[in-house]
Amino acid sequence: MKTIKTIDSMRQTKKGFHESNKSIGFVPTMGSLHEGHLSLIRRAREENEIVIVSIFVNPLQFNQSHDLEQYPRNFKRDEQLLMNEDVDYVFYPTKEEMYPNSLSVDLNLSKRKDVLCGATRPGHFEGVLTVLTKLFNIIAPNRVYFGLKDAQQVAVVDGLIKDLNFDIELIPVPTVRESDGLAMSSRNVNLLKEEKEESHYLYQALLKGKGVVEEGDWSREQVISTVQSELEHHLSGEVDYVDCLTYPELSSEISKIHDIIIAVAINYKQARLIDNIILKPSGEVKYRSEP
Amino acid sequence: MKTIKTIDSMRQTKKGFHESNKSIGFVPTMGSLHEGHLSLIRRAREENEIVIVSIFVNPLQFNQSHDLEQYPRNFKRDEQLLMNEDVDYVFYPTKEEMYPNSLSVDLNLSKRKDVLCGATRPGHFEGVLTVLTKLFNIIAPNRVYFGLKDAQQVAVVDGLIKDLNFDIELIPVPTVRESDGLAMSSRNVNLLKEEKEESHYLYQALLKGKGVVEEGDWSREQVISTVQSELEHHLSGEVDYVDCLTYPELSSEISKIHDIIIAVAINYKQARLIDNIILKPSGEVKYRSEP
Repeated sequence: MKTIKTIDSMRQTKKGFHESNKSIGFVPTMGSLHEGHLSLIRRAREENEIVIVSIFVNPLQFNQSHDLEQYPRNFKRDEQLLMNEDVDYVFYPTKEEMYPNSLSVDLNLSKRKDVLCGATRPGHFEGVLTVLTKLFNIIAPNRVYFGLKDAQQVAVVDGLIKDLNFDIELIPVPTVRESDGLAMSSRNVNLLKEEKEESHYLYQALLKGKGVVEEGDWSREQVISTVQSELEHHLSGEVDYVDCLTYPELSSEISKIHDIIIAVAINYKQARLIDNIILKPSGEVKYRSEP
Repeated sequence: MKTIKTIDSMRQTKKGFHESNKSIGFVPTMGSLHEGHLSLIRRAREENEIVIVSIFVNPLQFNQSHDLEQYPRNFKRDEQLLMNEDVDYVFYPTKEEMYPNSLSVDLNLSKRKDVLCGATRPGHFEGVLTVLTKLFNIIAPNRVYFGLKDAQQVAVVDGLIKDLNFDIELIPVPTVRESDGLAMSSRNVNLLKEEKEESHYLYQALLKGKGVVEEGDWSREQVISTVQSELEHHLSGEVDYVDCLTYPELSSEISKIHDIIIAVAINYKQARLIDNIILKPSGEVKYRSEP
């Protein structure tokens, strides 16, 4: 595996593979890799001749400098994990390499943003889209891999790729969970012991919501209130949101023909946890319109 | 020459040239081609194996629906001109092909915008950058050609390419002028007879400004007032702006090490004319700081 630190060098490397017509699978990360990332990388490894992983803690997508500073960094460990997965290149630029000057141009997001995490993280997804546009232009991959744990991120990247015609296939990869159901996250290491022990109820609550939908005759409010009361009953963290929306449009106008997402966020003392389930309509799933 | 109307077909065509490692020169236009465009196309023809011209009247960059409707369109004539120049492909998509849905993501411009034409055309350059991002992603050219007549457009595209790391070389091409000095423009056909006759004074006024700079000991105000009084003396149109800024940053903080632009805009009854001169500092050109 080769570590590449400059944009010019990454670009030269990419050009070689384009000329030899080799497919590039790209997994953008902020490092602090866990099983969730590895599942993306393994999928990329299966589907592409070349696998490139980026590690860059993107300051643009943090709302609070405190969260940016707290974000765990351990390149040596990450590098070893990537070597174990037979990754070809890790792109590991500095902040100065990615943002040598303040930007004159960035990305603007006008839909899919004022709900779920976007509602309380103004500018977050714009920051994500801006760094992704830069990385897409530098690496020009054939396929890009994102975890469905951050389903809103997948939704806004879907909008980015479609609306701006990036010639890249978006591959959403299912959430990897610990044995008790807790979704893998870089932030899980910041959970206190008691928080960690109860945290599996996030997923349990989503399964209760799924159960309501699968029973057939349900409303959006009913799904939300079921999940909300489960969370409040079992968790000491503060419930930030529970929502049920169309996917990937993230509209509250649920209809029978749409996929839906049930999504939650919990604020703990040192960590914010998110999780979700995406359900597809089928003969068994009946939708009831809002009153 | 082949006319391509769909994004998929353009993309397939482009892929073939990438695989065979042929260089693509791209000239984005809104049609109604004149000598100015042809100078860009000839330059692209000299420097690339494949030349692609796009013709798309981009609704996003018009502030007024009136101006969008007035914009001249004549594809048959344009097509003939492009064939004469040995262009390989013209990309000619419909509005529905380029904007099938309202966008969830677009481009945001935070610098180089609130001066010159940007000051009175809110959203114009954002619309330009959004369609260019789409076209860059669809065509993936090696080089893109823009005329320096719209020097602010060249400046914002320079920002787009550098800040978002598009792997494209920006080639700014000098303004083509009629024999009397009037810069070529699609909008010149909308000038009334008397307006057309006096319009060469735009360039004359810029040359006066250049003369002031070349004399050596000058201030920004002095350049602006010299050009302004020339315009007011000779032209019946309304002077929208006269300015003297650094280039391409478009800052009013002139300094000795910067290129500068002297730029003007005139509003006539049915047409808006713009023109500029870009000057580079040299031993002969002395800058004087603002009081």
